[in-house]
Amino acid sequence: MGLMDKYVEMLDGLKFEDMYNNDFLLTWEKSEDELKAVFTVAEALRELRKNNISPKIFDSGLGISLFRDNSTRTRFSFASACNLLGLEVQDLDEGKSQIAHGETVRETANMISFMADIIGIRDDMYIGKGNTYMREVSSAVREGHEEGCLEQTPTLVNLQCDIDHPTQVMADALHLINEFGGIENLKGKKVAMTWAYSPSYGKPLSVPQGVIGLLTRFGMDVVLAHPEGYEVMEEVEEIAKKNAKESGGSFTKTNSMAEAFKDADVVYPKSWAPFSAMEKRTDLYAKGDTEGINQLEKELLAQNANYKDWECTEELMKTTKDGKAIYLHCLPADITGVSCEEGEVEASVFDRYRKSLYKEASFKPYVIAAMIFLSKIKNPQETLKNLEEKGKERQTK
Amino acid sequence: MGLMDKYVEMLDGLKFEDMYNNDFLLTWEKSEDELKAVFTVAEALRELRKNNISPKIFDSGLGISLFRDNSTRTRFSFASACNLLGLEVQDLDEGKSQIAHGETVRETANMISFMADIIGIRDDMYIGKGNTYMREVSSAVREGHEEGCLEQTPTLVNLQCDIDHPTQVMADALHLINEFGGIENLKGKKVAMTWAYSPSYGKPLSVPQGVIGLLTRFGMDVVLAHPEGYEVMEEVEEIAKKNAKESGGSFTKTNSMAEAFKDADVVYPKSWAPFSAMEKRTDLYAKGDTEGINQLEKELLAQNANYKDWECTEELMKTTKDGKAIYLHCLPADITGVSCEEGEVEASVFDRYRKSLYKEASFKPYVIAAMIFLSKIKNPQETLKNLEEKGKERQTK
Amino acid sequence: MGLMDKYVEMLDGLKFEDMYNNDFLLTWEKSEDELKAVFTVAEALRELRKNNISPKIFDSGLGISLFRDNSTRTRFSFASACNLLGLEVQDLDEGKSQIAHGETVRETANMISFMADIIGIRDDMYIGKGNTYMREVSSAVREGHEEGCLEQTPTLVNLQCDIDHPTQVMADALHLINEFGGIENLKGKKVAMTWAYSPSYGKPLSVPQGVIGLLTRFGMDVVLAHPEGYEVMEEVEEIAKKNAKESGGSFTKTNSMAEAFKDADVVYPKSWAPFSAMEKRTDLYAKGDTEGINQLEKELLAQNANYKDWECTEELMKTTKDGKAIYLHCLPADITGVSCEEGEVEASVFDRYRKSLYKEASFKPYVIAAMIFLSKIKNPQETLKNLEEKGKERQTK
Repeated sequence: MGLMDKYVEMLDGLKFEDMYNNDFLLTWEKSEDELKAVFTVAEALRELRKNNISPKIFDSGLGISLFRDNSTRTRFSFASACNLLGLEVQDLDEGKSQIAHGETVRETANMISFMADIIGIRDDMYIGKGNTYMREVSSAVREGHEEGCLEQTPTLVNLQCDIDHPTQVMADALHLINEFGGIENLKGKKVAMTWAYSPSYGKPLSVPQGVIGLLTRFGMDVVLAHPEGYEVMEEVEEIAKKNAKESGGSFTKTNSMAEAFKDADVVYPKSWAPFSAMEKRTDLYAKGDTEGINQLEKELLAQNANYKDWECTEELMKTTKDGKAIYLHCLPADITGVSCEEGEVEASVFDRYRKSLYKEASFKPYVIAAMIFLSKIKNPQETLKNLEEKGKERQTK
Repeated sequence: MGLMDKYVEMLDGLKFEDMYNNDFLLTWEKSEDELKAVFTVAEALRELRKNNISPKIFDSGLGISLFRDNSTRTRFSFASACNLLGLEVQDLDEGKSQIAHGETVRETANMISFMADIIGIRDDMYIGKGNTYMREVSSAVREGHEEGCLEQTPTLVNLQCDIDHPTQVMADALHLINEFGGIENLKGKKVAMTWAYSPSYGKPLSVPQGVIGLLTRFGMDVVLAHPEGYEVMEEVEEIAKKNAKESGGSFTKTNSMAEAFKDADVVYPKSWAPFSAMEKRTDLYAKGDTEGINQLEKELLAQNANYKDWECTEELMKTTKDGKAIYLHCLPADITGVSCEEGEVEASVFDRYRKSLYKEASFKPYVIAAMIFLSKIKNPQETLKNLEEKGKERQTK
Repeated sequence: MGLMDKYVEMLDGLKFEDMYNNDFLLTWEKSEDELKAVFTVAEALRELRKNNISPKIFDSGLGISLFRDNSTRTRFSFASACNLLGLEVQDLDEGKSQIAHGETVRETANMISFMADIIGIRDDMYIGKGNTYMREVSSAVREGHEEGCLEQTPTLVNLQCDIDHPTQVMADALHLINEFGGIENLKGKKVAMTWAYSPSYGKPLSVPQGVIGLLTRFGMDVVLAHPEGYEVMEEVEEIAKKNAKESGGSFTKTNSMAEAFKDADVVYPKSWAPFSAMEKRTDLYAKGDTEGINQLEKELLAQNANYKDWECTEELMKTTKDGKAIYLHCLPADITGVSCEEGEVEASVFDRYRKSLYKEASFKPYVIAAMIFLSKIKNPQETLKNLEEKGKERQTK
């Protein structure tokens, strides 16, 4: 029996042909089958690589990356995924480029895409901007292809925007699938997506929003917990509610971390900024109001400081299901006494879950590779089988 | 009949063996046959890629890039060309390197070239420097190869210097060849290379110089138009005159934009700095005279402002051949009311030609790839045929 | 007879299986056989490349580079080596990444290594830090692999630390082996590793330390010369003594440049900072004591200025063996009247040896490639033979 048989069989039962030649921007724009296809292909690519079989599908081609915020993990995950499939990463560093000089998005998007197969964008800083920008880029390059300027259509992967962080939360979900032994076992499990205290401010909302938008798809009981004033985008909450209804799970909210942790199977304690404050900041940036921004920062840090007890402690962990909930984090975490004086998580908790957290992170490059694969390969099952059959060594042994 | 037959036949009729193992620094150093070989190979490589056939000729090797000025388009075009042929781009970022520490050009050129097959340089800021620097690098690495320090000779591609911008204007010309349906149809066509107003200052002269130096090769009637005081390098004008004489075209000058546009088949309205001012600036930079530089900038902006009526308007466009001249620009353009208050071109004109401008730009990566190909491949016809025959997919479908 | 036969035969006589899956951090941690294996594989890879045979052993995979100091040569050497073997370089630029935000070394090391086969680090600024940091990274990724977070173990290459500069001095040694016609001919040759005056301060000690730690392995008579106060690390001197004893060579010290040069077969005149001053600087940096650092810099420059006569002059060169010692330098050198007013070496001496110095540098990419090759390939002899037999062209001709 072939390595790929299991994955091919799973894919055969799924409907995902719309992913071909399409972007991956928000998980809730994808059907359940499409999400499963990503998980399956991610596992298949990992299996091939584990067995020293190269899953290269490109002989040449560029993967364009555009990071409008600092990034280590996502940058390396994207680079790893591109490299695995045969694309060379070319980073659009806006500092080095002429974008600052007033170019329109449409023009730049086309000028960098003559040989681009994929474009990965991280743009999470300003509310109402990041996802919109990605759609502008996407429609610009689609138009460029239709008009004959681009020989191919580069597809987009959202590497984090103001609304969602699909590569992160898909990796988180795939980790859970592995931990619970199958996607069907997520059903009925309680997830606590909770705010936690951090001495820094302005952390993006895309992770909590991504989590409630995704995990409600699989029949999980998702609880969103945060202090008053730390609301996330209303429209994402609506999506979470709708998802829960459809999947037979639930989506509830609370202002108590303890309530959220109680009997939880999964906890995801993480700091974020209040949505309304991020909206305000976006306006202040637009106006170039530096004083206003500094003032806002002070206020937010003071506000945060009221909730230092929102920490993932050993005590709280004990209240979770059998005291053994899976602890998730997108990393880096603010660890009390390690990376800061008071933070999101007690050092001993973090340490106990370190290995599991690294494993969680290890799915991200494969998830990104799967998103690229599914947007570029018309018949993934056939291609996976061919790759195995060809059996090109990834590394000479 | 094979895909490559047409191109192979065209190459069979051309004499271009001197391109092998040679640099591409100025178009007027190349014979007409050599220019035609570049156009032909560029089209052939595009044809292969369009048909999903990989034109990779390198299994490993580096393409070194050195950008002494900001760049998006040229950076991505060079990266695309290198990637298409199998070279990995390694950028020599002088900020990160020890070049600032007083290394000689010869030493650095050799130290970065142990596995370099191609070196692409953009150095357009200072009059009398850029092209000279490229020649220094070229002779350094040639000597390095002869002395046994380098196993191969990296060849150079001029990605824009103080004198010429060969990859840009060759792409412009290839666009015209496609628009007019053959290089023979350029003969007798009128080209208006004209200055246009921009609210910024100090734009390089390499584009207008490159255009008059190249398009006069093909029997075109090239008119260079600019306000008094915006003269380009005299030696390039001399070259344009000589070219026109030899090709049966013409090269004339005027201080009237309207005169240039009248009945033109092609217009290229674009801002540039006066040559004499750029010479002065180069001296001021050499002296580190910041105050002098600021003073010069003020003077130049004031001088520019006298010529705000040098704008490519709908009205002017109507005076061109059938009101339908091809509008060229190297991008980004200063578009009135879009990227600036008053600029080089009216928004409606630019918008009407947007698709055509993107198409023009799309030739650049292939032109660069062709320059690399012709400097590295001894028998291009045979190689093109072999690539087609081998038929390695660029991307698994 | 095959190209690889000679190298395979040499490798057959050596014991180096411990290099497989291991780091290369300090030359004195490697056996003489292991060092010889590096030399042999470096020459073999050079031979393959010279004959246009690709030595690619990776179909995909990343080579992570981390440079905590400016670098041109080493950066390009590492990139060249990775590219030659099929790895794509991904630079961990701490400016762009979240490392500055308090991440632990362990976490970052794992997060960037999901698809990393090799990690190259340059960290030479602070005494007691660089090598220690490399070991932390190494044990972190080993643990990551054991814990199942990384599918493979990335191995480390020390691209310069506070103690040793193995890729440089191995390249220096390979140059000597070529110049003297065999490693056995190094025996009994006198090497003068001497301090030389430079108008800059704080140059790393890793080169002199690396030289005395390595060249004493081959029965050479190594003399370390410097003014009083410019001592190198004591523990490395101890290693040099021990090495000399075992190899039948010698290690001596002097405060006279003339004495060191007298009858030397090889001279390596180069500036470095006093070890004790570097220790002090490391403490000042840790305290953030900017004033103290500036004060120290002044003191060190003043101290240097007392020894301007420590220059490699024509006169001194005449006193070497037959007046024809091989002159080594890691480059860039401070050349009197060229790169500075008064420096390490007279211009005419440097110029005479320029070609030889470039040749010396040309070994570095191959040495790095050999280190990678030996840490990744279980049976190097078989792989080298297979590569030759397969005969994949590096570049289509």
